[in-house]
Amino acid sequence: MNKNSSNTMALAPNTSSKRETVCIFGTGDFGRALGHKMIQSGYPVVFGSRSTQTSSLIPKGAEVFSHAEAAQKAAIIIIAIQRQHYNFLIPLAEILRGKVLVDVSNNLKINQYPESNAEYLAQLVPGAKVVKAFNTVSAWALQSGTLDASRQVFVCGDDMEAKQMVMDIVRALGLTPVDQGSLLAAQEIENYPLQLFPMWKFPILLSLGLTAFLFFYCLARDIIYPYVYDNKDFSFFIAISIPNRICPVLALILLALVYLPGVLAAIIQLYRGTKYHRFPDWLDKWMLCRKQLGLVALAFASLHVLYTLVIPIRFFVRWRISSRIVSQALNNKTEPLNTTNAWLSDSYLALGILGFFLFVLLGITSLPSVSNNVNWREFRFVQSKLGYLTLILCTAHTLVYGGNRFLSPSSYRWYLPNAYMLSLIVPCIVLVVKFVLIFPCLDKPLTRIRQGWERNPQYSE
Amino acid sequence: MNKNSSNTMALAPNTSSKRETVCIFGTGDFGRALGHKMIQSGYPVVFGSRSTQTSSLIPKGAEVFSHAEAAQKAAIIIIAIQRQHYNFLIPLAEILRGKVLVDVSNNLKINQYPESNAEYLAQLVPGAKVVKAFNTVSAWALQSGTLDASRQVFVCGDDMEAKQMVMDIVRALGLTPVDQGSLLAAQEIENYPLQLFPMWKFPILLSLGLTAFLFFYCLARDIIYPYVYDNKDFSFFIAISIPNRICPVLALILLALVYLPGVLAAIIQLYRGTKYHRFPDWLDKWMLCRKQLGLVALAFASLHVLYTLVIPIRFFVRWRISSRIVSQALNNKTEPLNTTNAWLSDSYLALGILGFFLFVLLGITSLPSVSNNVNWREFRFVQSKLGYLTLILCTAHTLVYGGNRFLSPSSYRWYLPNAYMLSLIVPCIVLVVKFVLIFPCLDKPLTRIRQGWERNPQYSE
Amino acid sequence: MNKNSSNTMALAPNTSSKRETVCIFGTGDFGRALGHKMIQSGYPVVFGSRSTQTSSLIPKGAEVFSHAEAAQKAAIIIIAIQRQHYNFLIPLAEILRGKVLVDVSNNLKINQYPESNAEYLAQLVPGAKVVKAFNTVSAWALQSGTLDASRQVFVCGDDMEAKQMVMDIVRALGLTPVDQGSLLAAQEIENYPLQLFPMWKFPILLSLGLTAFLFFYCLARDIIYPYVYDNKDFSFFIAISIPNRICPVLALILLALVYLPGVLAAIIQLYRGTKYHRFPDWLDKWMLCRKQLGLVALAFASLHVLYTLVIPIRFFVRWRISSRIVSQALNNKTEPLNTTNAWLSDSYLALGILGFFLFVLLGITSLPSVSNNVNWREFRFVQSKLGYLTLILCTAHTLVYGGNRFLSPSSYRWYLPNAYMLSLIVPCIVLVVKFVLIFPCLDKPLTRIRQGWERNPQYSE
Repeated sequence: MNKNSSNTMALAPNTSSKRETVCIFGTGDFGRALGHKMIQSGYPVVFGSRSTQTSSLIPKGAEVFSHAEAAQKAAIIIIAIQRQHYNFLIPLAEILRGKVLVDVSNNLKINQYPESNAEYLAQLVPGAKVVKAFNTVSAWALQSGTLDASRQVFVCGDDMEAKQMVMDIVRALGLTPVDQGSLLAAQEIENYPLQLFPMWKFPILLSLGLTAFLFFYCLARDIIYPYVYDNKDFSFFIAISIPNRICPVLALILLALVYLPGVLAAIIQLYRGTKYHRFPDWLDKWMLCRKQLGLVALAFASLHVLYTLVIPIRFFVRWRISSRIVSQALNNKTEPLNTTNAWLSDSYLALGILGFFLFVLLGITSLPSVSNNVNWREFRFVQSKLGYLTLILCTAHTLVYGGNRFLSPSSYRWYLPNAYMLSLIVPCIVLVVKFVLIFPCLDKPLTRIRQGWERNPQYSE
Repeated sequence: MNKNSSNTMALAPNTSSKRETVCIFGTGDFGRALGHKMIQSGYPVVFGSRSTQTSSLIPKGAEVFSHAEAAQKAAIIIIAIQRQHYNFLIPLAEILRGKVLVDVSNNLKINQYPESNAEYLAQLVPGAKVVKAFNTVSAWALQSGTLDASRQVFVCGDDMEAKQMVMDIVRALGLTPVDQGSLLAAQEIENYPLQLFPMWKFPILLSLGLTAFLFFYCLARDIIYPYVYDNKDFSFFIAISIPNRICPVLALILLALVYLPGVLAAIIQLYRGTKYHRFPDWLDKWMLCRKQLGLVALAFASLHVLYTLVIPIRFFVRWRISSRIVSQALNNKTEPLNTTNAWLSDSYLALGILGFFLFVLLGITSLPSVSNNVNWREFRFVQSKLGYLTLILCTAHTLVYGGNRFLSPSSYRWYLPNAYMLSLIVPCIVLVVKFVLIFPCLDKPLTRIRQGWERNPQYSE
Repeated sequence: MNKNSSNTMALAPNTSSKRETVCIFGTGDFGRALGHKMIQSGYPVVFGSRSTQTSSLIPKGAEVFSHAEAAQKAAIIIIAIQRQHYNFLIPLAEILRGKVLVDVSNNLKINQYPESNAEYLAQLVPGAKVVKAFNTVSAWALQSGTLDASRQVFVCGDDMEAKQMVMDIVRALGLTPVDQGSLLAAQEIENYPLQLFPMWKFPILLSLGLTAFLFFYCLARDIIYPYVYDNKDFSFFIAISIPNRICPVLALILLALVYLPGVLAAIIQLYRGTKYHRFPDWLDKWMLCRKQLGLVALAFASLHVLYTLVIPIRFFVRWRISSRIVSQALNNKTEPLNTTNAWLSDSYLALGILGFFLFVLLGITSLPSVSNNVNWREFRFVQSKLGYLTLILCTAHTLVYGGNRFLSPSSYRWYLPNAYMLSLIVPCIVLVVKFVLIFPCLDKPLTRIRQGWERNPQYSE
């Protein structure tokens, strides 16, 4: 917006209105898709190729030249060929001097090569300015325009201006450039499209392990025990009854594990008397996957709700109820209403409903577009205050569900307590420690530590 | 960021700090709302109007001039008047030479005029640089600040620099400019605000058609048949029982239709031996509305879940159960538990719950903000692997629900099979073909074709 | 993108590739976190501090100088210290002349000081260009990279170029700058992180008030009345039965309150004969929190659904059904099916299911990422057409639920009508008035008024 020019000039901008030519080396799927998109966005595009014969697949409006010719026509050259063919660039080094080379390549495995493709390219053509970009975008998505997955394009490079030029192109194509810093970040950027939910690995493995353990635990208590002692075949419990024991237990344990690291961190900070010591690595990692832990817990809670709501439709339950009523009728017996049982049943259901409702609210606020619309105070309020309320409600739901069953001997078949009793251990610990930490004698020093105060200020300036 | 200037200069930027004046032709609702917003964002605004009398509605800080005077004060002129009045610009052509004219107009019907309003404007004032923008934004939203619908502003124009100037203004107003290329795109941009869910048209029409067919089909089987033969009035089945037959059938068929085009595409590619042939048009369109098909299927599945869960509350169901129990008690008969039935009932419910759970997961990952946070590998994993698992679970749910009813003659009233049997045709075809395609003898050539290999490489360079 | 340079130059950009140095005053948590992030993004960072001794906490790559020295090394100085210490900047005024000072501070209370911190800073150092920014970002989030809450950085300032420089930095850090205009906006920006769901205050207070009223209302009718007259203890109704009366009533009333202001606005516009008169303040505020009202209504509707679906699992309900069946069996009585009751029961359930389904659809389309992907016509279609359909379905659900109970005397214990009858008042008014407004004799003038026509055009130009 040439600010130095005279006023009349500013009011009638001079018409150097063409975008700069972009060169693409390689006429494979990705090169053509990118070229197509760039032509749409107003960039003149030239392709560099071994054979300069224009095929019907080359996007309309683009020209094909030899690599050397094409390179001379543009300041930016996109290297849309595979790493193993990068060697052919060595003889072109002189022509590529000072040019911006954009490495768009991906590998087949994480950390496939010792150095990233972009750094390898920079070594091969030392005179060029290498920028890593576009590797997270799919050729198919570029061509069809259905960018359902990420519109983010991670960009890195050592030359600021080259990076800026590439980021301008990214923006012009309707994508979102994200500056990741120097070319050292290329390895990470190249690994990104190969990742498969890395943050979810720990929560999912943990819950798979717990599921397996609880499955065999419940199998022993609920199917093998009655089969051994009463010769009853309850094998069909595998379909609904046992999953409906495992899901709430897992949901409660995982939810408690979301809040346990915060409590541990508080204890460590109180013990050390400073916040400027790094936490142990496992605690850091744990804290970073709390959101994923919570969402897995929510998934198990939702399954528990569905499994519970279909109870009255189950053949077995209908059979049990009707045979109980028939035997009552045959024995000519009518029971009066047991108000205590009515209270227990209604209140554990109500606690469960409210707990699940808040849990779903927590889940909704963790959607990126929702959490992006709240400020930090609101986010903390929801994730901390509402989160603890959810944990309290769900723990109370389990306690009341237990009701007077805690002391009944039938709950301890083969000395194995009911699964729900196991689930109470972690949440109760979390809630008790959190309750203790609220006392002023602990809360005050903790708040001061978190504001930067140190008991033994050895680390300050 | 005047990089060529001396170092001291760079450290103390010179204060040419005012934004450039923007002129708005037209003092209607939209012109005033836009002017108001621009003044808020620091732009000096002048209005061009027939009557230069300032009304109380003109935003504070803006001045009103005649069209000619106002045009001379700015490089950018926003034409906030209707297309039918564009003629008055012809006498101003000399003043408008070299200016950026922003066409913000909308039409009342799709493709109302042979050429877009912006192209018409460019013909009327050939010396000006016409840019299309802002037509997707509502005056009311601009004024009230509640931009609930899209913040995206589609921009197109033949002059790069003019387009860039307009995009800078868009960004300064807190909106997101999306470059749509040259002025040829104006027609499409003008049609955009008049569209009403164009991608949803086919899935919704298809499901309405299927719903109508299935409704009369079930009406005949479940209401007319018992009325004719047993003289029983089950007309109230229209409210819940029949919808609860239609919804799962539709959900399963639509879900299978999401995966059918992928299977067809694979067959076509295998047959042709290349991926560089375009698919038939209907297949392309079908592939582009798969997401919408899947979401409509999810809607029907959710309705099915709700209809199923209220079953035990229905008056008819309660009456049927209690009269069955009463007759059992009167006949002094107690049934033993039928374990097979318990297995069938529990496992079809469990399969349905798991299928629905995965289906909801698929739905959540198709939310724009979620899919924008995963990479392509993760997106494909969820939409393909989890999607097929969902289809398998839902098909199994229906098969087990059928159970031993497939051979019972009561399932074929008037030779019409139960509706759920019809629903199994498409998903079973999809699953069988997909299963066949997994065999190495087909999977290997298919993978090679998708990596660019051609059996008869007539299209290569 | 030096367009004035010769062609060869353009093709080989000169390597002034380093980013400009940024100075940070203050080595507290926020200053260090910001410095760390900036170094990652390629900015050279210098810290200005009282003590120039480098502590182990200072990010690697940053240097520490005295305030005066550090300030001289950069054009942008970030003031990461608390407002009460701003005085120390006064002696530095000469060095700071012409520099860009970025105020990142926050207060502890809303409107804590008469003027915003940024304006106070501008008064203290009149020669500098003060920009407000970064105050919505948390130090912890910057450091850990988990920007779960907002990535939006509100920026304001009187100097355009200074603001642009800061916004470039914001963008380089991977955050989204939002220009809020001149420094006058600083007060609002400083209040933003202290807000706790300001738009939700009215809907939540309203629903809390209504909940309390309805709770005591139902307590009297459903627990105290049977206790007083029949000496029956139904106190356990507090857990589920009474919440399940309150939730649907609140959901229906709040949903009607979403559409009431639109109806009122239409009446006011018809009466005044113009749309250019401002609405009363309460109506404006009401209209702006309609989305929140609707979402609170949806929350109550979801709770109602959950409370209803657990009905068959409740101990009390099972007891009541079984004792009714037992007494039927003992009396040797079988009831024939009452088709009217079957119709009523099935249709109120079906209406409720459809109403809730549409309500959830409305909720999903109000997610920011979904509403950002629809155009205005689609948004209005969903929120207005589908919204009214939801209201009609939910009102019909309540009316059919009432069924023939409206005239039964047992519905008027202590002359108090059932709670659901109260809930029908507002929705029926809204629907009747809306229906009247559809008549052409009212709809036509209303449409013309909304297109800008005035009965007494006193306000036009």
